[in-house]
Amino acid sequence: MATLALASWATNLTYTNLPTPVLDAAVKSIYNWAGCAIGGFGQDAPQIALNTSLAVGFNGPATSSILGLNSSSDAFADAQLAAFINGIASHVDDYDDTHLATVIHPSGVIASALFAITEARSQTSRDGGPNPVSGPDFLTAFIAGVETSLHLGRSVFPEHYDVGWHITSTTGSIGAAVAVSKLLGLDTEHTQQAIGIASTQVVGMQAFFGSMTKAFHIGRATQSGLLAALLAREGYTSSLTALEDQYGWLHVVTTRENATAEFEQLGTVWEIEENTFKPFPCGIVMHPAIDGAIQIYDEMVALGKTVQGGEVERIDLRMNPEVLVLTGQTDPQTGLAGKFSIYHAAAVGLLYGQATPAQFTDAVVLNSTVVALRKLVNVTTDADVAEDAAHVNVTFSDGSTVNKYVEHAIGSLANPLTVAELKTKFMDQVTKQIGGARAEKAYTAFTNIGNMTDVGTLRTLF
Amino acid sequence: MATLALASWATNLTYTNLPTPVLDAAVKSIYNWAGCAIGGFGQDAPQIALNTSLAVGFNGPATSSILGLNSSSDAFADAQLAAFINGIASHVDDYDDTHLATVIHPSGVIASALFAITEARSQTSRDGGPNPVSGPDFLTAFIAGVETSLHLGRSVFPEHYDVGWHITSTTGSIGAAVAVSKLLGLDTEHTQQAIGIASTQVVGMQAFFGSMTKAFHIGRATQSGLLAALLAREGYTSSLTALEDQYGWLHVVTTRENATAEFEQLGTVWEIEENTFKPFPCGIVMHPAIDGAIQIYDEMVALGKTVQGGEVERIDLRMNPEVLVLTGQTDPQTGLAGKFSIYHAAAVGLLYGQATPAQFTDAVVLNSTVVALRKLVNVTTDADVAEDAAHVNVTFSDGSTVNKYVEHAIGSLANPLTVAELKTKFMDQVTKQIGGARAEKAYTAFTNIGNMTDVGTLRTLF
Repeated sequence: MATLALASWATNLTYTNLPTPVLDAAVKSIYNWAGCAIGGFGQDAPQIALNTSLAVGFNGPATSSILGLNSSSDAFADAQLAAFINGIASHVDDYDDTHLATVIHPSGVIASALFAITEARSQTSRDGGPNPVSGPDFLTAFIAGVETSLHLGRSVFPEHYDVGWHITSTTGSIGAAVAVSKLLGLDTEHTQQAIGIASTQVVGMQAFFGSMTKAFHIGRATQSGLLAALLAREGYTSSLTALEDQYGWLHVVTTRENATAEFEQLGTVWEIEENTFKPFPCGIVMHPAIDGAIQIYDEMVALGKTVQGGEVERIDLRMNPEVLVLTGQTDPQTGLAGKFSIYHAAAVGLLYGQATPAQFTDAVVLNSTVVALRKLVNVTTDADVAEDAAHVNVTFSDGSTVNKYVEHAIGSLANPLTVAELKTKFMDQVTKQIGGARAEKAYTAFTNIGNMTDVGTLRTLF
Repeated sequence: MATLALASWATNLTYTNLPTPVLDAAVKSIYNWAGCAIGGFGQDAPQIALNTSLAVGFNGPATSSILGLNSSSDAFADAQLAAFINGIASHVDDYDDTHLATVIHPSGVIASALFAITEARSQTSRDGGPNPVSGPDFLTAFIAGVETSLHLGRSVFPEHYDVGWHITSTTGSIGAAVAVSKLLGLDTEHTQQAIGIASTQVVGMQAFFGSMTKAFHIGRATQSGLLAALLAREGYTSSLTALEDQYGWLHVVTTRENATAEFEQLGTVWEIEENTFKPFPCGIVMHPAIDGAIQIYDEMVALGKTVQGGEVERIDLRMNPEVLVLTGQTDPQTGLAGKFSIYHAAAVGLLYGQATPAQFTDAVVLNSTVVALRKLVNVTTDADVAEDAAHVNVTFSDGSTVNKYVEHAIGSLANPLTVAELKTKFMDQVTKQIGGARAEKAYTAFTNIGNMTDVGTLRTLF
């Protein structure tokens, strides 16, 4: 009875159940999400999605924020549209969080759904007047959702992923449904119904990696989970055994599952503690190579040299085989496609000494120096090299070489970003979108979310 | 290049390509859809979905009709919400059309999407003022969408269905995307992008048959296809090879496909000509048994007898094995579940001499006479009995028996509803929702759709 077990656990979860490291991971996940949602909003994908929705009038009375809008108004869209756009924006830079064991980026779907409905409830609710959501209640709902996505992901990984599903969105809609159900105070049976409505909406395939539709998956799954919980609250019926039914989620979308055993660990094993934060806005399997390339760049700069491109003869990478499976694009033509090219990633790391959103624009991907340099990248795969490791060797035309072994890439579980680095990342992303003064205020607001009495007013603080 | 082939065919399709029988099938499909959408609106599923959406403000400026609303106003919701509610309402009675070779009910998703956007364009459009859609343009777009769903369904049936997907909605979102793309005049490449965005939203599993979520699938797939075309028009990117990509629809959601060969038949084999219309509001595999039971009822009435229930000793059915796979519920507790119980279906046919929405209410499903009678139903499966056939034998307590062999159930391809029967069905459904006078006007309006200069004004005619 996997569906019942999941719903029952979520319904019974309380803030006082939550260990401090779990709460700490949740707050980091939330402000990292907010930075991504604000910083990513300038990209074409959320812009087109928003403009399309507004042009055809798919937007009701404004209750909820589109986080990256450079405006001081605190409500701009209905909760459904805000959830959609924030979801897309939070993922479009491929800069969000990662649970490496499942390759799930859990926060985008769940936080986007929760934040939109939290803001709406701060103004009005089904029960009459405002129904503010406190910081502890927000965090509890968020953690319920993240644990749902990650334990569900564990129960079907890698088979579900290997067939081609985008596991972040396929598990995310169910996580969001549980999170919103928790926020709304649904009982176990209504939460089961919400899980059912969410689970039958399976959004996201890997065919769309490198296109705007990858981020669409996150936006749409956000809406799916939100809608599922809202419908279930009003008595919309689905199935109380949706996940484990013969023709339900666990049997239809994967060839193997152990959800029952996995859900027994809910509340004991907190998967959110394994959530990590990306230092580079691109596919995570490329991060060790970027880390190594940047280290080589830094060493050369320390020696008074600069990398121009022309003096490089070849760049050799030895990495885990997943690198070519997921990021093997040799000749990307857009910034989004560059995020899935190990060749591009290694080249910009060595050439610019950094890999920020500025290195994954269309212009940089088409820049002739970058194009020439990435043709010099050779990738050898080796199953003995861990996914967070890389051997990076650069050979120069004068015959000299520089070698670098990255054992645990920056941002990996064994080498996580520090709080200071997380703040730097947040400030970089947010400043370019809404300016430094507001970015500083936003950082303060989101890092303090657990202490708020009405999270729905957070947006007015920056 | 299945995606290109499909998009290219749809883009190049013109009204003058369409044979008369194809147009005739399209008009029947559309007015049968309209009758279902109006008649089904009173059910709980569309009512809850509408009330939930309105309560949380998921509704922008009104441009489009909710067809079953008992109001003379011609616009009540934004196109997204109207598409959702009309989609749910059109399917909730399980009374819609059926393409038996694929078990797809094609019109609900496609007509609901097209009608909502057509109404919106009648008032305003991206290009400035109104941009009316003519009857021929509406029919051409509708046929493009239906052919897409059905040929795509053919290419993956039965494997895709057997794993548990609700094939009506999983193929429907792609059909709707092609239909709306055609209506909006998108070129081939933009239509390919729309196919991609639609295809990555896979909604609908069979775990939800018998619950409100079955009809939700149709409503949500309607929105998915509509949104996909609108986003693609504005340059949102997906994949030009979405269907055939290694990690795309054809590989992820089925174990076998022959889409390339199937799409070569587009424009030559018109699948819409095999669309049929249900005489009974329930799973189509039960129809032969209902047909036989009603024939027995009628014979008894002709002999001056009535069926009370108590005088029946047993009811024996010999039918195709799919009957128990799809409709084997022995003890349904709701009207929706009764639609998937061959036991309930045979019982009401014999007891009431009819099987209309009135025989699939919660009250009738729980009625003690009905409950007692359905316990007397025995089903023997026999692969030699066709899906549209049934042997029905009733044994009475006095030892007498009545036997009936239904070779082709009423409503099947070999024994279709006549135009007069289709009108009776339409009038029955629509009258109970909006009254007989408006029903008559609605029938005239929808049957005349092909001659209109502005289909977006149709709703003002009734």
